[in-house]
Amino acid sequence: MKKIGILGGGQLGRMLLQAAANYPVETFLMENDSEAPAAHLCHHFTKGNITDYDDVYRFGKNLDAITIEIENVNAAALDKLESEGVKIYPCVQTLKIIQNKIAQKEFYRQHQIPTSEFIITEKIDDIKSNASFLPCVHKLASGGYDGKGVQIINTIEDAEKGFDAPAVLEKKIRIKQEISIIVAVSNTQETTLYPPVDMVFDNDLNLLSYQISPADIPEKVLWKAEAIALNVVKKLNSPGIFAVEMFSDAEDNVFVNEIAPRVHNSGHNTIEGNYSSQFDMLWRIMLDYPLGNTEPILSSALVNLVGEESHKGDVKYEGLDKVLAMDNVFVHIYGKKETKPGRKMGHVTILSNEKQELLHKANQIRHTLRAINV
Amino acid sequence: MKKIGILGGGQLGRMLLQAAANYPVETFLMENDSEAPAAHLCHHFTKGNITDYDDVYRFGKNLDAITIEIENVNAAALDKLESEGVKIYPCVQTLKIIQNKIAQKEFYRQHQIPTSEFIITEKIDDIKSNASFLPCVHKLASGGYDGKGVQIINTIEDAEKGFDAPAVLEKKIRIKQEISIIVAVSNTQETTLYPPVDMVFDNDLNLLSYQISPADIPEKVLWKAEAIALNVVKKLNSPGIFAVEMFSDAEDNVFVNEIAPRVHNSGHNTIEGNYSSQFDMLWRIMLDYPLGNTEPILSSALVNLVGEESHKGDVKYEGLDKVLAMDNVFVHIYGKKETKPGRKMGHVTILSNEKQELLHKANQIRHTLRAINV
Repeated sequence: MKKIGILGGGQLGRMLLQAAANYPVETFLMENDSEAPAAHLCHHFTKGNITDYDDVYRFGKNLDAITIEIENVNAAALDKLESEGVKIYPCVQTLKIIQNKIAQKEFYRQHQIPTSEFIITEKIDDIKSNASFLPCVHKLASGGYDGKGVQIINTIEDAEKGFDAPAVLEKKIRIKQEISIIVAVSNTQETTLYPPVDMVFDNDLNLLSYQISPADIPEKVLWKAEAIALNVVKKLNSPGIFAVEMFSDAEDNVFVNEIAPRVHNSGHNTIEGNYSSQFDMLWRIMLDYPLGNTEPILSSALVNLVGEESHKGDVKYEGLDKVLAMDNVFVHIYGKKETKPGRKMGHVTILSNEKQELLHKANQIRHTLRAINV
Repeated sequence: MKKIGILGGGQLGRMLLQAAANYPVETFLMENDSEAPAAHLCHHFTKGNITDYDDVYRFGKNLDAITIEIENVNAAALDKLESEGVKIYPCVQTLKIIQNKIAQKEFYRQHQIPTSEFIITEKIDDIKSNASFLPCVHKLASGGYDGKGVQIINTIEDAEKGFDAPAVLEKKIRIKQEISIIVAVSNTQETTLYPPVDMVFDNDLNLLSYQISPADIPEKVLWKAEAIALNVVKKLNSPGIFAVEMFSDAEDNVFVNEIAPRVHNSGHNTIEGNYSSQFDMLWRIMLDYPLGNTEPILSSALVNLVGEESHKGDVKYEGLDKVLAMDNVFVHIYGKKETKPGRKMGHVTILSNEKQELLHKANQIRHTLRAINV
């Protein structure tokens, strides 16, 4: 059996390990918290720091392959491991591009991948000296995650909210829709695309409120989005799973927002909604099996369960019984001990070919299920 | 979080624990083999003997609930635990009826549940003195599993194949179809039925070769089978998951063959085929959530992967790539290190509303995928 490691033990690792149990594979996981959502589901757990060179190198040196749950891992150690023959998903060159938002934006520019205009900033003063470029989104070059490290700078008065560190100042796009496409790339560079997902965000938390798959988008946007997603992964030149997050505007232009070189929230609906889920697919890739079938079984919607505002501490789930009594919904609770505002605590997938039913139930679930403290 | 234990660490435990990771629950597992298929997927693994009183009692005494993967567990220890407030799924009274094939047959007789005629035997001579009752199936009262402990006695010449120990001599029925219905029973005695499954057996190994769900059966047989299955679980008077295996004959009579008081091979297709799988359902029951939806998403077929004849030793999977390249199939490899003839090594589920496609692919898979030694 191949020995495959995961860096990070959150919900993505949890769902990866649920899927791993369909295959002959020996699983390893490294994470600082031995009570993390995925920690108990691997064959071999290592307590360690995924950003530490020695920890990552020691963890990886006897493995056949490693994948990541989060971009913020020690790339230098992975570099060394890759040079010694350990397969890294995504490959380290690709990971480095994506780890840094400046490198990521320059990658788009270099390969003529449509993306919002941008200016690289080093300090808050750089925002002020580019007042005519506003309104913008300011993104910290590295270390941002799940809405952290991102600030909206509408006017010069907002500049102080920006980052006094290397960052990207992106011109705001008048977004019509946010779309994500998950792309799978095999070791032999075969690719397959999942149907696009239409993502509806909660602007306050910058967290997804629900998503629908396949997305209801004009054919022209679909074609552009698919072509862009394929082009992006071709240029990244790495096997693995990639979430390509895009915007469309009123003129049906499509722009890449960002890429995640890993399984991604926008693909969670594939667990029940598609023949091969994004998690199943990543194991197929790492185990050198044929790529799976990305077609939907039924259309799906997904609602994230995030920690309720002003609730912090040991979690309980309000309304869970009501949601579990619904006919065609699938609940995933991530098993985190503590909730805090905006923390991803679970998700719920709804299957139906009736779009109205998907929307109706998604809204019902959003207003029923809450992660609060005991 | 509730603390729930599983006795036994095979593929049923494995799939139970895959499903458990959707819920907030702390999982415990006891099994003699620390490399068993399910051993690594629980929060807390205990190496121990599930037939040993002390081991089972010690394992269970701090748990909220316990379920079983196999009937052959120490019922006396579970009895003690139940009396001390640990919930047992199925309850111990029910488990004891099913553990012993004589008690099981007498239970059917007592409750007028249709089942094949039978004679209780103590030794092989009892077969010989009931020659006029043949042809029969001889079943060992306790300890049989997966085709072991069962012998076909067609004529008096076969008597020596029988058991020189307490057993049931069942009159052979001219079987038209074998049907299984999985029934879920909540703590408050609510029940729900999965669609019947049509089971096609390999007569040599007495192992399932493929199954189709929902079964293609006459409406009259469906009604009878559902009524019988419901009646059986009502009389068993225990929460949990029950597989009620039945025969129908040419006259559309329906007979109970046997009951499994647990998740069962004939329900594996529910993982992808139904909104709530049998594994999901058992967690709902044990965690006091509402029962799930047993409706099929699509029709399904299931092929068991059993160890190839005359292959024994470290396993490899021939044809796995070909099966994984099929569009609407789901592979489950149980992660057992060694194969041996007839051992359950995995299963493959096919989803399609076209019965011809289900049958065609089931046959293709049966002739493609093999578990052989390296």
